[in-house]
Amino acid sequence: MPLSFEVRDTDLLGRIGTLTVGGKKVETPCLLPVIHPVRQSITTAELKKMGFQALMTNSYIIYRRRKEEALQKKIHSLLGFDGVFMTDSGGYQVLEYGSVEISYDESARFQSSIGSDLAVTLDRPTGYTTSEARAKETMMYSLRNAEATMKEFGESITSWVGPIQGGLFDPLLKKSAVGLVAAGFKMLALGSPVQVMDSYRFAELVGMILAARRSIPYSMPLHLFGAGHPLTMALSVALGCDTFDSASYVLFAKNDRYMTENGILRLGEMTYLPCSCVACVSTTPKELGEMPRDERTRALALHNLHVLRAEMLACREAITEGRLWDLVQVRCSSHPRLTEAFSVMAGEAELLSVGTRHFRDKGLMVRSAHDLGRPEVLRSAARLDASFRRGSGTALLLVGGDQIPIGEVKGPAAALGRRNPDVFRLHPVLGVYPAELDYVYPFTQTVAALHPQPGGTEAAKKRLRRLGYKKVEVWEVGKGGRAQRAESRSRRSR
Amino acid sequence: MPLSFEVRDTDLLGRIGTLTVGGKKVETPCLLPVIHPVRQSITTAELKKMGFQALMTNSYIIYRRRKEEALQKKIHSLLGFDGVFMTDSGGYQVLEYGSVEISYDESARFQSSIGSDLAVTLDRPTGYTTSEARAKETMMYSLRNAEATMKEFGESITSWVGPIQGGLFDPLLKKSAVGLVAAGFKMLALGSPVQVMDSYRFAELVGMILAARRSIPYSMPLHLFGAGHPLTMALSVALGCDTFDSASYVLFAKNDRYMTENGILRLGEMTYLPCSCVACVSTTPKELGEMPRDERTRALALHNLHVLRAEMLACREAITEGRLWDLVQVRCSSHPRLTEAFSVMAGEAELLSVGTRHFRDKGLMVRSAHDLGRPEVLRSAARLDASFRRGSGTALLLVGGDQIPIGEVKGPAAALGRRNPDVFRLHPVLGVYPAELDYVYPFTQTVAALHPQPGGTEAAKKRLRRLGYKKVEVWEVGKGGRAQRAESRSRRSR
Repeated sequence: MPLSFEVRDTDLLGRIGTLTVGGKKVETPCLLPVIHPVRQSITTAELKKMGFQALMTNSYIIYRRRKEEALQKKIHSLLGFDGVFMTDSGGYQVLEYGSVEISYDESARFQSSIGSDLAVTLDRPTGYTTSEARAKETMMYSLRNAEATMKEFGESITSWVGPIQGGLFDPLLKKSAVGLVAAGFKMLALGSPVQVMDSYRFAELVGMILAARRSIPYSMPLHLFGAGHPLTMALSVALGCDTFDSASYVLFAKNDRYMTENGILRLGEMTYLPCSCVACVSTTPKELGEMPRDERTRALALHNLHVLRAEMLACREAITEGRLWDLVQVRCSSHPRLTEAFSVMAGEAELLSVGTRHFRDKGLMVRSAHDLGRPEVLRSAARLDASFRRGSGTALLLVGGDQIPIGEVKGPAAALGRRNPDVFRLHPVLGVYPAELDYVYPFTQTVAALHPQPGGTEAAKKRLRRLGYKKVEVWEVGKGGRAQRAESRSRRSR
Repeated sequence: MPLSFEVRDTDLLGRIGTLTVGGKKVETPCLLPVIHPVRQSITTAELKKMGFQALMTNSYIIYRRRKEEALQKKIHSLLGFDGVFMTDSGGYQVLEYGSVEISYDESARFQSSIGSDLAVTLDRPTGYTTSEARAKETMMYSLRNAEATMKEFGESITSWVGPIQGGLFDPLLKKSAVGLVAAGFKMLALGSPVQVMDSYRFAELVGMILAARRSIPYSMPLHLFGAGHPLTMALSVALGCDTFDSASYVLFAKNDRYMTENGILRLGEMTYLPCSCVACVSTTPKELGEMPRDERTRALALHNLHVLRAEMLACREAITEGRLWDLVQVRCSSHPRLTEAFSVMAGEAELLSVGTRHFRDKGLMVRSAHDLGRPEVLRSAARLDASFRRGSGTALLLVGGDQIPIGEVKGPAAALGRRNPDVFRLHPVLGVYPAELDYVYPFTQTVAALHPQPGGTEAAKKRLRRLGYKKVEVWEVGKGGRAQRAESRSRRSR
């Protein structure tokens, strides 16, 4: 039963998919809550009830502390969860504790023997380093282990996940990803974003994900390690990450940190709980503060999980509705460092346009200059370029009245009938376009907050003259669709 | 027991207050769900359990359909709610049905007799009209009724709420508000925003609220009629609205519309329910769609109420944390029409700064040009102007290294010691400032996504020369706080 990944819907580089592994199905984008193999604040039964279809745990801790039991029972019954289990190799423990005492093949054999569905080959996370030599060393170590594991073990019940390392160095990330694909991995995982995210270097996170995504086939699922920040999930999904694992829900809870979809708050500073989840709806920060520590951690962990779960569903819903760009923009408006990251993403419209549908039945929102980089806007500009033909004689340029369909514009009809000129309209965002495209997405479906570009009319006239029109008549469309020649109006008002 | 309003905390024009009326207390900002006096999708007991301390209902419908029963039982036991009851006069029914058959004094007598805590005098909502004559007529009718009611009935158990009308005409809104205050009203309610909001004219909504707020004392609570859109609550709170009533939760539910804090979705188009409330957490859009209509309406109404309740709490929490501007900005990033409204608000920093604290222990976020209008930014500019003194000799201008406190800047110390020049720093957002202010809010507490203004260094040098400095030495602060003379560096790099 090899791993398979089926994409059902797309938006930007994000997609709704079904990941099948170990004979079990997981809908993506998907967060895998990390559970500790020995003690859990939230039980696996509770996680399942909340709708989580896959969990992550650490095979090295199991190896060290529950080895025999795990080999005998297998992981699903050991931890009481019949969904997909992904196991980490213990590589992350190197980052935290300096070293782990296990070899790549011992790790792989153990993960396979306990029946893990998705197992990460033993890696050495690059972490956040400015040393290219150090980054290269960790990347090469991880790649060699991965190649050797795949060679020795191949695909079985357990599917191998290849860890992409290389930190912030694009060429290393590329070499790592390309090497893992060549070695036969069907799913990759991008490593080391935790420290990048903890220090709010979100623009660099965007760069890392794009470097990885560009280097692997579109059809291959990509996991992002340790990405449990509610603010970055939509962003990572838009950049093509399919699955995430994180212990953030419980780690944050232990520090009395309360997730919201706009940021992380500190329980001690809170007066209200702006949330409707079961952990919040009938209590207060004061009551939570007075609980015994374990009970409070559990309540906060449950709340944090609910926020992450809702965000995961919001990402999926946004993809199906073609609103992922909008969701990312709203999330990224909550912190300047995220606004920067959004700028970086917005500069990659061509790459992002892969999954953006060509037509949709909803308005296209243009709120800021960033939105001028939306795939839909760039695409319509390209469609425009293709639709202009050489002109001659008189062109009629209608300005204003953006929401009034061409058929309802009154006034220039007489002029139209007599001289039959080509008619164009001026869109505040998309510029000049042939009036025939008026009903074509997104010309009248664009809701814009940007004011018309100053000098837009002059630029449009110039463009039309360049196309060969001898004369451009400008008509202004006013209330109720009544159009008036701009020149004659200005004469009269003198 | 007259109405009293006590303000506990403020941010922008928003405030956390306690409204005491009829001997009962309501914490503000506060949403009053509108209930139908005959049939309720969500019962008053459920609303109370969700934490709603006040409800709104229509006294005219009670008058027409349950008059005797209401006079006998009084409103609280009639409808089974012991919190604050606010009653509308039936004026809104004029807007919907053309006319109501009740006089102002009959309406007032009835509302008072059934024991309403807060009663609106009989008004004629202006609605959305472009006719100033029509707007004036409705405003004057409402004002005269209000004056007459207050004269005849005065304050008793029932406190009177004066309805501000005038639609989109600022002078009329002002005349209305000033007249009501003069007539002795202790609480006012701004009318007719529903149609303005339904047509997404949010910038005009901001204008209406500001016109009303400017015309009444800061200490007076202001109600906003019919404002139950989750996207505009934070905006309205920031502009000084304290209470809201709305039936939107159930009206939207009847049309299968699903509220989120980023917009309204249509159940029929949804695949996922991105929410953790009791109505959503264990069901799907498909299951909801297959429910009998009444049951589905009830589930959606419950969900919508949970969204509005959480938003109300988010507004309160944002005020206590001094983050209301940020919350409004995030909410307004979800729709171009709201982005426009936010621009209008951002242009009123002086007015908004009333409630903004002078110091806070959190970073100030600057994400966009709009944020340059934040009260804190304008205030620090004013503080700067006051702190500059006439200079002479050499000024040292440190550029870059914005997050590195002046005490940790290495390099110019020697220059400092020898010649003792005045030291200035260049902030990417706030401009040039004396280095002594480095630890003063918000100079190093500002988290900015804006790139330094191009020409910022030149502008800073010019400003320092105007202050009398003969020479301005520019030093660049690099990694680890190491500073280097910009001139010498550029010489070397040639």
